[in-house]
Amino acid sequence: MHSLQFTAESSSNGMIERDFTVGGVPGVLWSPASGTDRAPLVLMGHGGGAHKKHVAMTARAQRLVTGCGFHVAVIDAPGHGDRPRNAQDEQDIAELRQAQAAGEPTGPVIIRYNARLAELAVPEWQAALDALQELPEIGADGPVGFVGIGLGTAIGIPLVAAEPRITAAAFGPHWPDALVEKAQRITVPVEFALQWDDEHIPREAGLALFDAFASKEKTLHANAGKHLEMPRFEVDSTVRFLARHLGQAVTTPA
Amino acid sequence: MHSLQFTAESSSNGMIERDFTVGGVPGVLWSPASGTDRAPLVLMGHGGGAHKKHVAMTARAQRLVTGCGFHVAVIDAPGHGDRPRNAQDEQDIAELRQAQAAGEPTGPVIIRYNARLAELAVPEWQAALDALQELPEIGADGPVGFVGIGLGTAIGIPLVAAEPRITAAAFGPHWPDALVEKAQRITVPVEFALQWDDEHIPREAGLALFDAFASKEKTLHANAGKHLEMPRFEVDSTVRFLARHLGQAVTTPA
Repeated sequence: MHSLQFTAESSSNGMIERDFTVGGVPGVLWSPASGTDRAPLVLMGHGGGAHKKHVAMTARAQRLVTGCGFHVAVIDAPGHGDRPRNAQDEQDIAELRQAQAAGEPTGPVIIRYNARLAELAVPEWQAALDALQELPEIGADGPVGFVGIGLGTAIGIPLVAAEPRITAAAFGPHWPDALVEKAQRITVPVEFALQWDDEHIPREAGLALFDAFASKEKTLHANAGKHLEMPRFEVDSTVRFLARHLGQAVTTPA
Repeated sequence: MHSLQFTAESSSNGMIERDFTVGGVPGVLWSPASGTDRAPLVLMGHGGGAHKKHVAMTARAQRLVTGCGFHVAVIDAPGHGDRPRNAQDEQDIAELRQAQAAGEPTGPVIIRYNARLAELAVPEWQAALDALQELPEIGADGPVGFVGIGLGTAIGIPLVAAEPRITAAAFGPHWPDALVEKAQRITVPVEFALQWDDEHIPREAGLALFDAFASKEKTLHANAGKHLEMPRFEVDSTVRFLARHLGQAVTTPA
């Protein structure tokens, strides 16, 4: 088992930010500045083309850490953030850019590309979780949640399907093609958000992925608007969902 | 114009409860016990077979009044609560019981029955709103929201379509048949909840009704479970939705 190596530490806005690597994969762990009491852990998967400290991650981390007292960890996906791209990454990205430039549907490229990354990323996440649970402020038996956006959903669905330690998961929109079979194995509470007027992911495809989850408690949030127009209040909703299931009260900012 | 006649007043749990009639229609107005400052008004439409003080109404009123400082008003639908049933009401209810006893779909009966009640109830609601806005603690130019459940949705969709004073609306599940055309005229923010495994309202029918709203901001909340299994956290969500749009902060209970 790889252990977790902290490589940098800083602090702002009530959060301690610690960069780490585990088995060569770079990650970040945000924790409440106020104390070292044992607290639930939320794993977050960043979107395609983004990285562990993308604002979509830091904004959610801020709410989860200072609002709920959770620890939040993100690792860079393969070929993302501080990780090098290999030839296959370059080729997949070139195909994606080509489809975008030609005004062709990007779905087929993204589905294949993200499925390939997910296969690499799931064991990396499991190794990261093993190492994070060695930390006394997290521990081996505390609640663990997952939040995934875009690529983070493509990685998160197979991860949550494989990983009994994760007991609640919030996912953003993705194509169902490579994910339905894995979603059908997920039984923990799920909150799933999609965009009703998504210009990339057909509405029926989004609904099919929600339908696939085997969870007794699952909630779909569908908002009017295009792919990138998800309203900000969905971030608040994700925070409340995780607070409800991981067992912390949400502190509303004054 | 009919004015509002208060017929009884009591107070508990931080709410003043005032029974009233307007043009012969009985209603109830809940207000914060703490003060008489002008505050937003929420109109709530009760479900079929229920009445203005059904627990589904009082539970929501409590959250809206003591959590947000809103006024909340409910009137009895025709043939419901303190209002007499006429021969047509008795016949519709008999048909509904017959369909239930025979295990036949209740949708066709409910759609027709509720559409008939809505035609009567919309002008009653408008007269009640006129009279409520005469009260100094509500006023003619304050924000007005609507919450409808079941029959309250069947009445509320044509009401909100016809009534520019209502600026935000939360609806529960209903069949789209008699409502789509009216929903297409609604442009204010809408939160619409349905049950993913509803044994009465087909999933496609619920989604079609959500799709029909012309609102730029609309949110669908679909939860796993049958018709009567809507999770309690949807009540919290409705409260937050109205607080966001009617402009009050939500106070979380300690």
